[in-house]
Amino acid sequence: MKSSIATISWCYKEAMAAAEIDANLASSIRELAQQAKAASRVLSAASSEQKNRVLERVAKALRSDDAVARVLEANAKDVNAAREARVSAALIDRLELSRTRLAAIADALVHVAGLPDPVGVVEETRVLDNGLRTGRMRVPLGVIAMVYESRPNVTVDAAALCLKSGNACILRGGKEAFHSNRALADVFVAALEAEGLPRASVTLIPTTDRDATLALVRLDGLVDLVIPRGGEALIRFVTEHARVPVIQHYKGVCHVYVDGEADLEMATRIIVNAKTQRPGVCNALETLLVDRACAATFLPAIAKTLTDKKVELRGDARARELCPELRAATDADWDTEYLELILSVAVVDGLDAALAHIARHGSYHTEAIITRNEGKAQRFVREVDASMVLVNASTRFNDGGELGLGAEIGISTTKLHAYGPMGLKELTTRKWVGYGTGQVRS
Amino acid sequence: MKSSIATISWCYKEAMAAAEIDANLASSIRELAQQAKAASRVLSAASSEQKNRVLERVAKALRSDDAVARVLEANAKDVNAAREARVSAALIDRLELSRTRLAAIADALVHVAGLPDPVGVVEETRVLDNGLRTGRMRVPLGVIAMVYESRPNVTVDAAALCLKSGNACILRGGKEAFHSNRALADVFVAALEAEGLPRASVTLIPTTDRDATLALVRLDGLVDLVIPRGGEALIRFVTEHARVPVIQHYKGVCHVYVDGEADLEMATRIIVNAKTQRPGVCNALETLLVDRACAATFLPAIAKTLTDKKVELRGDARARELCPELRAATDADWDTEYLELILSVAVVDGLDAALAHIARHGSYHTEAIITRNEGKAQRFVREVDASMVLVNASTRFNDGGELGLGAEIGISTTKLHAYGPMGLKELTTRKWVGYGTGQVRS
Repeated sequence: MKSSIATISWCYKEAMAAAEIDANLASSIRELAQQAKAASRVLSAASSEQKNRVLERVAKALRSDDAVARVLEANAKDVNAAREARVSAALIDRLELSRTRLAAIADALVHVAGLPDPVGVVEETRVLDNGLRTGRMRVPLGVIAMVYESRPNVTVDAAALCLKSGNACILRGGKEAFHSNRALADVFVAALEAEGLPRASVTLIPTTDRDATLALVRLDGLVDLVIPRGGEALIRFVTEHARVPVIQHYKGVCHVYVDGEADLEMATRIIVNAKTQRPGVCNALETLLVDRACAATFLPAIAKTLTDKKVELRGDARARELCPELRAATDADWDTEYLELILSVAVVDGLDAALAHIARHGSYHTEAIITRNEGKAQRFVREVDASMVLVNASTRFNDGGELGLGAEIGISTTKLHAYGPMGLKELTTRKWVGYGTGQVRS
Repeated sequence: MKSSIATISWCYKEAMAAAEIDANLASSIRELAQQAKAASRVLSAASSEQKNRVLERVAKALRSDDAVARVLEANAKDVNAAREARVSAALIDRLELSRTRLAAIADALVHVAGLPDPVGVVEETRVLDNGLRTGRMRVPLGVIAMVYESRPNVTVDAAALCLKSGNACILRGGKEAFHSNRALADVFVAALEAEGLPRASVTLIPTTDRDATLALVRLDGLVDLVIPRGGEALIRFVTEHARVPVIQHYKGVCHVYVDGEADLEMATRIIVNAKTQRPGVCNALETLLVDRACAATFLPAIAKTLTDKKVELRGDARARELCPELRAATDADWDTEYLELILSVAVVDGLDAALAHIARHGSYHTEAIITRNEGKAQRFVREVDASMVLVNASTRFNDGGELGLGAEIGISTTKLHAYGPMGLKELTTRKWVGYGTGQVRS
C-alpha cells in the first residue's frame, strides 16, 4: 500500500507544481529549446577547427582586461548578495572569481580545444559479404541540458565540452551565481557569433525560477539529455520530474576492503590517501572493511595512524572489540557519504562478506580491494557493481583527468549510456553508416 | 498553456491509475523484482559455459516430444480463445506455434549459445604513467524488463539474449499469448534449475493485468532498463509511466533520396527492394524524395515500375505535375509508417531540401541517399540524424542479423545508450577497472 500512496501524493504535488508553472515561462523555455535544437543541427556539421576557434576566442577574452572587468563586476554582485545572505564561507569560496581563477578557466578551454574531436570518427568498420562497407560513426547527442548549483566555472566548462562534442547546451545555473553565469555566457556567445556559429549553441536560462527547470526537463523530443550536477536533493528533483533521459550521480559511498592476504603497509598507504588526501570529493574513502583474518593486527595500527591524522573512526561491534576507543557506528553510517574526516569501519568474514556489504551499501561509484591473492582480486573486480573497481590502488583514481579522458562533465553512477567519468566521447552516440554500390536484400 | 494543462490532466489520470493499483499486486511485483535483482548478481558471475548449457538444454527440450506437447497444448488454448474473440488472421498467425516453429526457436537458441559472450571482456586497456593498468570491462546491466505483445517466441528470444549477456529478465507478455508464454517460460526455468542457476533469472509476470506493467516500470533501483516491444501505443504508455530508463523504438518512417547525380537504374533497384521486399517491417521505405534535377525523367518511370508491383503512390503537388495520375498526399502522409504497399513521393530542390524534409519528418530510424557524388554522400551521412544512414544501398540493411550482431533484441531509435540494432553488447555496460601495485594520488 505504501508505494501507491507515495505515488498518489507525489502526483498531486506534481499536478500542483504543473498548475503553478506560468504559461509564459513554459512557452519561452520551449522556444529557447527549439532554437537550441536548430543550433544543434548546425553544430553537428561544424568542423573541429571552427569549434576550436570559438574555444580559443573565449580563452583569450577571459584573459583580456575588458571581459575580465565585466565578469568580475558581475561576480562581485553575486558575492556581495551571498555575504548579505550570510551564506557559509565555503559557498562564497566556490562562488568567487578572480583574475587567477579566470585564467585557470581559460587554460581549461585551451586544453579542451587541444583534445581530439570525437565527432565523425567511424569505429568498428567492416565489409559485409555483399560488399556493403559498414561502421559506426560518432555523432553528437543533440541538445544537452545542465542543471547545476553554485560554481560559475561550470558555465564555461560545460559549454566548452558540449560545443567540442557538437552538442547545443542549455544551462540552468544556481541563483547565487546568476550574474556571474550571465557574464560568462555572454563572453561565450560573443565568441560563437564571431566565428559564425549560432547564438543558441549555448543558452543560459535567463531566470533562476525553479519552474524553469521543471519546464526544461519535460521537453521530450527537444532536449536529448539532462545532467544535474550538485547535491542529492537537486538530482532527485530533476530525476522525479524529468520526461527526458537523465544521467545521475547521487553520491560516492566508496569502500576499501583489506583482505587477509594484503600487503598491510600498502593497505595503510592507500587508505590514508583515499581518506585524507582530499576528503570532500566523491571518490574519497568512506567505509573501510577489514578481513577478520588480519583485523587483530591491522585494525589497531590503522586506527592509530588515522586518528593521528585527525580522522574520526566509527566502528561496528567487532571493530570496537579490537579498538574499544572507537565510537559506535549507527545503521545510517554505512550509507553515509561523509565528505569529511570521518570513516566507518567494519570487520568482515572474508571476501564473500565484503562483497555482500558492498552490494548492500555501495553507491555504484568506486570500490577497491587490497590483496596479494590474484584469484580474490579477480572475483572482486568481476562481482562488484561500481563505475570503477580497483585492485591495490587508491579510490581517488576514478577521475576523468586521471584516466586520460582529458576533461569530464561529471561521473555517471547510472549504468545506461555511460558508467563512470564522462568525457567528450560520452557526450556522443554512434549511428550506423553503410556505403554501398547498389546492394539490396534478398 | 497547452503543455501545462496536458500535464495536469495526465497527472490526475496518473494519480487515478496509481490509486487503482491493487496493493497486493504492487507488492508481489516488487517481490519478483527483488528476487530478479538477487538472481542478477549470480548471473553476472556465471561462466559462459554454464549460460550456454542452459540455452542448449532449452533448445533440446523444444525439440522433445514431451515439452513440445505441453507447449502446443497451452498454445492451442490461446489460439482458440483468439478465434472465439474473432481477432484478425494476421494476429492468429503471429500467435500460433507448431513443431516447426518451435524447432526454429530452438535453432535460434543454439545460435545465441554460439555467439561470443561480451561479459568480462576488457576494452581500451592502458597503462597510466604511474603504472596503474586500466581498462573498461563489459558487465551486465542487471535486471531488464521486457513488455511485449502477441508473439510468444519473444519470451524465449528475450530470455536467451538477457541470459547470455548476464542479465536477469522480467517478462510481461501480451494477454493473447498468456498460456503459451507460461509454458515456454516453464521450459526455460526448468533448464536454469537443472544447470544450478536461480529460477528468478527469468521471471514471467504471472498476470496480464495492465497494472502489473505500471507497477513494474516504476521500480527505480530494482529494474535497470525496460524495453517495450510492440505498437506505438504500448511504447508511449511505458514511456509515460516509467521511472526507470526506457529504450524506445517508435516507428520507422524511412526515406530514400534520389539525387540528381544518381545512377537511376541503381535507384530503381534499391527503391523496389526497400518498398516491396517486405513492406510490413520497420526498415521498409515509406517516403521517396526525388531531386527536381532528375524528377522529370525518373519520377514517371519509377511510378510505373511501382504501380506495376501494386504499390499505391501518394504525391506532393510537384510530383503530381509530373505524374497527374498519383493520388494527392495529405499532411499526415509525410509522418506515416504505412507498413504496407503505399509510398509517399515528393520532389525536392536538391540535397539541402532533402535534409530539411528528413529533419522534419524522419523517425531517427533509417535513411538512404542514391548519388554518384561523394561530397553529397558525405554530407548526407554526416548530417542526417538516424540510427543508420546508407549510401547507394537499401534501407532494409538496418538489421542486427545483416550487420553481424548475431541476434537483436530490438532497434533503438533513442540516442542514449544504444542507437540502432541492439545485440548482446548493447545489453551490457562498461565499468572501469584498475590494477595497481599500491598507487596513490598526489
